[in-house]
Amino acid sequence: MIARNILLLLLCSNVFLAAIATAPQTCPADASSGCGDNSSGEWEGEFFPGIPKIKYEGPSSKNPLSYKWYNADEEILGKKMKDWMRFSVAFWHTFRGTGSDPFGVQTKFWPWEDGTNSVAMAKRRMRANFEFLNKLGVDYWCFHDRDIAPDGKTLEESNANLDQVVALAKELQGKKIRPLWGTAQLFVHPRYMHGAATSSEVGVYAYAAAQVKKAIEVTHFLGGENYVFWGGREGYQTLLNTDMGREIDHLARFLQAAVAYKKKIGFNGTLLIEPKPQEPTKHQYDWDAATSIAFLQKYGLLEEFKLNIECNHATLSGHSCHHELETARINGLLGNIDANTGDPQIGWDTDQFLTDIGEATMVMLSVVRNGGIAPGGFNFDAKLRRESTDVEDLFIAHISGMDTMARGLRNVAKLIEASEFSVHLYCMWWLY
Amino acid sequence: MIARNILLLLLCSNVFLAAIATAPQTCPADASSGCGDNSSGEWEGEFFPGIPKIKYEGPSSKNPLSYKWYNADEEILGKKMKDWMRFSVAFWHTFRGTGSDPFGVQTKFWPWEDGTNSVAMAKRRMRANFEFLNKLGVDYWCFHDRDIAPDGKTLEESNANLDQVVALAKELQGKKIRPLWGTAQLFVHPRYMHGAATSSEVGVYAYAAAQVKKAIEVTHFLGGENYVFWGGREGYQTLLNTDMGREIDHLARFLQAAVAYKKKIGFNGTLLIEPKPQEPTKHQYDWDAATSIAFLQKYGLLEEFKLNIECNHATLSGHSCHHELETARINGLLGNIDANTGDPQIGWDTDQFLTDIGEATMVMLSVVRNGGIAPGGFNFDAKLRRESTDVEDLFIAHISGMDTMARGLRNVAKLIEASEFSVHLYCMWWLY
Amino acid sequence: MIARNILLLLLCSNVFLAAIATAPQTCPADASSGCGDNSSGEWEGEFFPGIPKIKYEGPSSKNPLSYKWYNADEEILGKKMKDWMRFSVAFWHTFRGTGSDPFGVQTKFWPWEDGTNSVAMAKRRMRANFEFLNKLGVDYWCFHDRDIAPDGKTLEESNANLDQVVALAKELQGKKIRPLWGTAQLFVHPRYMHGAATSSEVGVYAYAAAQVKKAIEVTHFLGGENYVFWGGREGYQTLLNTDMGREIDHLARFLQAAVAYKKKIGFNGTLLIEPKPQEPTKHQYDWDAATSIAFLQKYGLLEEFKLNIECNHATLSGHSCHHELETARINGLLGNIDANTGDPQIGWDTDQFLTDIGEATMVMLSVVRNGGIAPGGFNFDAKLRRESTDVEDLFIAHISGMDTMARGLRNVAKLIEASEFSVHLYCMWWLY
Amino acid sequence: MIARNILLLLLCSNVFLAAIATAPQTCPADASSGCGDNSSGEWEGEFFPGIPKIKYEGPSSKNPLSYKWYNADEEILGKKMKDWMRFSVAFWHTFRGTGSDPFGVQTKFWPWEDGTNSVAMAKRRMRANFEFLNKLGVDYWCFHDRDIAPDGKTLEESNANLDQVVALAKELQGKKIRPLWGTAQLFVHPRYMHGAATSSEVGVYAYAAAQVKKAIEVTHFLGGENYVFWGGREGYQTLLNTDMGREIDHLARFLQAAVAYKKKIGFNGTLLIEPKPQEPTKHQYDWDAATSIAFLQKYGLLEEFKLNIECNHATLSGHSCHHELETARINGLLGNIDANTGDPQIGWDTDQFLTDIGEATMVMLSVVRNGGIAPGGFNFDAKLRRESTDVEDLFIAHISGMDTMARGLRNVAKLIEASEFSVHLYCMWWLY
Repeated sequence: MIARNILLLLLCSNVFLAAIATAPQTCPADASSGCGDNSSGEWEGEFFPGIPKIKYEGPSSKNPLSYKWYNADEEILGKKMKDWMRFSVAFWHTFRGTGSDPFGVQTKFWPWEDGTNSVAMAKRRMRANFEFLNKLGVDYWCFHDRDIAPDGKTLEESNANLDQVVALAKELQGKKIRPLWGTAQLFVHPRYMHGAATSSEVGVYAYAAAQVKKAIEVTHFLGGENYVFWGGREGYQTLLNTDMGREIDHLARFLQAAVAYKKKIGFNGTLLIEPKPQEPTKHQYDWDAATSIAFLQKYGLLEEFKLNIECNHATLSGHSCHHELETARINGLLGNIDANTGDPQIGWDTDQFLTDIGEATMVMLSVVRNGGIAPGGFNFDAKLRRESTDVEDLFIAHISGMDTMARGLRNVAKLIEASEFSVHLYCMWWLY
Repeated sequence: MIARNILLLLLCSNVFLAAIATAPQTCPADASSGCGDNSSGEWEGEFFPGIPKIKYEGPSSKNPLSYKWYNADEEILGKKMKDWMRFSVAFWHTFRGTGSDPFGVQTKFWPWEDGTNSVAMAKRRMRANFEFLNKLGVDYWCFHDRDIAPDGKTLEESNANLDQVVALAKELQGKKIRPLWGTAQLFVHPRYMHGAATSSEVGVYAYAAAQVKKAIEVTHFLGGENYVFWGGREGYQTLLNTDMGREIDHLARFLQAAVAYKKKIGFNGTLLIEPKPQEPTKHQYDWDAATSIAFLQKYGLLEEFKLNIECNHATLSGHSCHHELETARINGLLGNIDANTGDPQIGWDTDQFLTDIGEATMVMLSVVRNGGIAPGGFNFDAKLRRESTDVEDLFIAHISGMDTMARGLRNVAKLIEASEFSVHLYCMWWLY
Repeated sequence: MIARNILLLLLCSNVFLAAIATAPQTCPADASSGCGDNSSGEWEGEFFPGIPKIKYEGPSSKNPLSYKWYNADEEILGKKMKDWMRFSVAFWHTFRGTGSDPFGVQTKFWPWEDGTNSVAMAKRRMRANFEFLNKLGVDYWCFHDRDIAPDGKTLEESNANLDQVVALAKELQGKKIRPLWGTAQLFVHPRYMHGAATSSEVGVYAYAAAQVKKAIEVTHFLGGENYVFWGGREGYQTLLNTDMGREIDHLARFLQAAVAYKKKIGFNGTLLIEPKPQEPTKHQYDWDAATSIAFLQKYGLLEEFKLNIECNHATLSGHSCHHELETARINGLLGNIDANTGDPQIGWDTDQFLTDIGEATMVMLSVVRNGGIAPGGFNFDAKLRRESTDVEDLFIAHISGMDTMARGLRNVAKLIEASEFSVHLYCMWWLY
Repeated sequence: MIARNILLLLLCSNVFLAAIATAPQTCPADASSGCGDNSSGEWEGEFFPGIPKIKYEGPSSKNPLSYKWYNADEEILGKKMKDWMRFSVAFWHTFRGTGSDPFGVQTKFWPWEDGTNSVAMAKRRMRANFEFLNKLGVDYWCFHDRDIAPDGKTLEESNANLDQVVALAKELQGKKIRPLWGTAQLFVHPRYMHGAATSSEVGVYAYAAAQVKKAIEVTHFLGGENYVFWGGREGYQTLLNTDMGREIDHLARFLQAAVAYKKKIGFNGTLLIEPKPQEPTKHQYDWDAATSIAFLQKYGLLEEFKLNIECNHATLSGHSCHHELETARINGLLGNIDANTGDPQIGWDTDQFLTDIGEATMVMLSVVRNGGIAPGGFNFDAKLRRESTDVEDLFIAHISGMDTMARGLRNVAKLIEASEFSVHLYCMWWLY
């Protein structure tokens, strides 16, 4: 839990002159060394010992490790809560987030991490993921290819690494758990610095295509219900050296190929575009829902894609989250929700768990109007704050996000009930 | 140079199905491995072979490795250009910038880097710094303690590392080159995640104090003319768990101690506060010039500090750079300028080299009104774009920044000349 | 109530060709003509017929003209709700707001308005104000001199107009109602286009001083508990023709004179600065709380003023409202709250009634930490939306604002109660 | 000219006590009364006496009433400057702008205004417009129906008023001057408070359609080359009471009818959508270029419309102006440019004349890439600052805007020339 023990000492002004012998309280600054001292051998026992399966205990519970509003099997407005929600854990934030930011290195040192990026470590981490999903009671997870398995020296080696970890994930999924969606990470590696599907280098373009091909195969193999494209590097830093028209043509060609390949292999999941206005680039081509719709229409892709709306991306583009959801919905394109939030005074992606009940109510209003969101769902593209360094915080954060959405749904139900007495309540028009 | 060779191929839609055998064009993604293959032994010869000392060639020159507007010894408005400017190179951006961002790893692999963070590497890098300064013709440099020498396991070890590198720097400085300022890096290490002078941990507070003590000593030893405090972690992520009043009290106590220590050791350099509104924290205590002034007044520090105004920080706080410079100036606190710029559509710190001539004119207007800025100067707190990966770009970027400021100064001179014919030109009022 | 009867017709495409004979549904566009057809004689009977005194009916009430959370005499945390709140109605928004905006003319035509700006009309409007206060059950009101009485051709005439209306207000106030604060309107008249206390014209400066003198007298006469300075025109459009240092000096001199005069006439109310970052000017000198504090310190005014924090101004300056309240509080300067809110995606002052319960909780947290806010209070510097044109809406809007604050206070009480069981809850630290 | 004679007096602190007898220096605050004392009879002689026809005098000229960079008949890149530019004066800002803002009344009192909104006054104003166009040497003007002729009590009366003024305009146009575009003002009148083409009232929708029908006829009659739709009220204040999908359907139907009518009457001008993100509404349906393109595609209107890009609207939507121009261009939709600029620190529409040469270069780069912009052009949707109250300022402002664009064009020519020596200069790719 974020905790700041308040300095009660009256700090004396000669502190500079005092001998300083403070023992280091965290790991050394050299982030590359890792800090866990676990043997690299097989992990014994639970990853989250002492944390039980999270249960619904209702609003009066004081137990931080319980749901107060989310009751998975309770029926609201004709559906079970879990079917309205279809919650998913984001592998990258939850298991690969280190707490680093542009001004600081890693702060989180989970006990199961051994400081390497080996396949063995990737497998151990995958086991932690499934224990987490099971304890949380969530049936979906989301991943980028490179966050679940290490990049190799060649594409073949990377694919082989991925296959090993995916085989384990398939086994751990059992009959109940599935990927809400998979995707390819086309932004971390330096080869993608000029873009992937919009790179000026044909070799990079081809490499990205091969990576997407594999990621779709893997998502299909795992029974994933959707596949996402987030074009983090598909944009520009300046128009002075960018031929925007040509780059967008290339992007369309890339996506057309993905559609063709999906059909070829029989993958029936929905393809999703995830709009974001900027960051890391100055300007991304999938700026917002409307921009993405213009793109899909122009290139004949409207029937093949839906949108994955992220609330934090919405506000960065100057819209409310509700606006983006509604824009997608009225165009029949509301495919999935990255359920997070930003900070209204901050101009970059903070990926916070949404805890604003009013906002959650608006989000759920769009979902109910849409008659639900399946085969999409809610993905928690949200991370612990940098200062939040306890393993338990991973649970508390997800619980708060889930409970908030659950309160949103309960509020929508109340609004609809109220509207039976008040035909003037416009926002309920769709019921009549 | 940022270059994007445009994809001329008509990309065929079956690219997915094609065999992919693209050789990797950049270094492997595993950023920790480094990419240079230099032996870790002593570096032979020049760091920047083929790059001559940069000379003034005038506006008609087509040579990118020449000054077109900055003519160091030319007199403008009664002073040499170099005395108006007092340009400084920022060690961290120029020699420690890797091109990583929140969504991507290192893209820059300078030939002299061996992938380690050793003291030997630190010394080699320092030699590169001085070759760069000499070729550029700049007499000042700026540094954080931890970017010039590696952090150690203990404070003693860190100090010893620092001493070794500083001894070399002192030697390389010769008679002409000096630090414009030094500072302590109190934001990268995880120990500072809750702040340094505003940390809730007394041990961290004390550690930060010890680090500042050493950094002041080292700056003094090198003949530095100023010492800067930038409180990257001195702020909050949320007021819900922060006692802002108490934290600011602690910050003041910290700075009072620094003043006392500076006097004790006979360091006559100016102490500078560098305001920034946010990032990495949601809200920093030195939000802008006015906020910093309120703080200095409240705690009796107004006589002991000046301000280091950064243009990118200015615009992030909702002000024009000129506003912040003037706010500092009319309070007698214009101490130094971090001469960079942001992007007007971007909500985070991009630290670009300023190339806008109009903006540079306004900046120089404040400097001329101030009668110059010594013992402060212009520090290029600016970095190459992530996609800019050639060593030569380091020179081109600095040249563009210096030439832009030089054009600003030349414009101010023209404005003043014009005002001799037009007493109505208000903005020249200070001449009368 | 804002109502949009949805177009149920399938609009046919030949609508252009159809004969159009739509009767005008609202008043003519010529805004200067007014629209009410009331005789200019004395108003008979109630201004708000059919609207009873608003009572507390509790959360389960469905009556829009009742309080669900605000129960004036209920004790919470040791004080009556009305004493924590000290709600005030803003005369200008409630009685002079016309619904015009930069792109459109007046939309509101209250039945008691006769389209003139006469003294008779001003008196009638003042009677409406007191009926409104009494029905709402609010004991405070706020005003600008020129919104309660018409400007005259000379200062003498303006003062005489004001005296007539103030005499009536005094009578209508009775024993219970008082101004929370008064102020002078120094921004509407073209004479103030370059500023009032910062005008470049000495005559304008003197005129403004005379206007403030009279406004303080009038506030004193009415038993006002505070007097506010909002410097809407005290800023600049561009620094190119502005001597910011000199203008701020003039502003300080102006306020020093106001302090002297207040003491001379025995007015014991608090003087308040109301920060705002910009609008109408590009940059106002009282940008935010910290900037105002720096100013008060510099000119020796810290003991003489407190701050009036407006939530919408806070967010326009890049801070949360809570940040501004806390900044004022920890400096002992939290004097009053303009309880409104902006729109997180809008860059100008929207002056909406606050209806966000989370935000209201944070606001009340600062007030409770401050031990209350008297002799200040909460002023609803908030207006009906342009489309909200029913008289009843004036009540509904205020009720929603008051109920929201009341819920905030109730939440704070719950937080404190919870903290008795959880000493870890930092935000309750002040209790220990 | 914006002038602030600086207060040289040392203002004494007893200014409050001094007798105030300042004569009013501007018109009375009562904006409805007007201030000019011209007889309402026929205007004799010139409107702009003493101002000659503006001529090109070159960069070394010191004459503020001359062009320094814009030389209408000079050929640049194969076209006359005037043919690249096709400058237009905006009737509303130039002749109907009063200097009022949300916090202040009228400051501009042009000598020819008699304080009425009569047809006679409208005609006199139209004569001033043509004298202005002729002296400035500009061949195009733009207008809204209601800014050139007064609104009447009925549609018939409004149309009759319009016909009278248009007949005069037709006569004054002569053979050379034409409207660049006309439009209908569908946002000022209260009937449009819920929208025009998206109003929830069928009568308002029909009224708006009739108004557009007439405005297209009038534009056609005057030989206008384009017709613009700016949907200032076509958006929402909150999604809670708005059925966005249905409103956008209605908007599309409205525009389809306009297309049909245009064809029916043989008007061959281009129809233009002018995107704006917000203001006056919280969110407008034509947010930016991409949003407008998505809309046009969805409703089969892509072949019938082009875009009118306004720079200030571009930056309010989070894009650079250049981005919006390029987005329009690469979609074949760059139809017209509203050549103004905003303030990078201000969140509302300031409609300033563009004086930034760098920005103007980027704008002209898009125009040159587009092979010119005819039948569109550059409309100065820009206004004098509120403090700028001299008639001469109207000329100086337009000259500065035109000269800035001319410098932009000259810079583009230099860039192209330079690229003949440097095939690496990507941004010149379109030459090859």
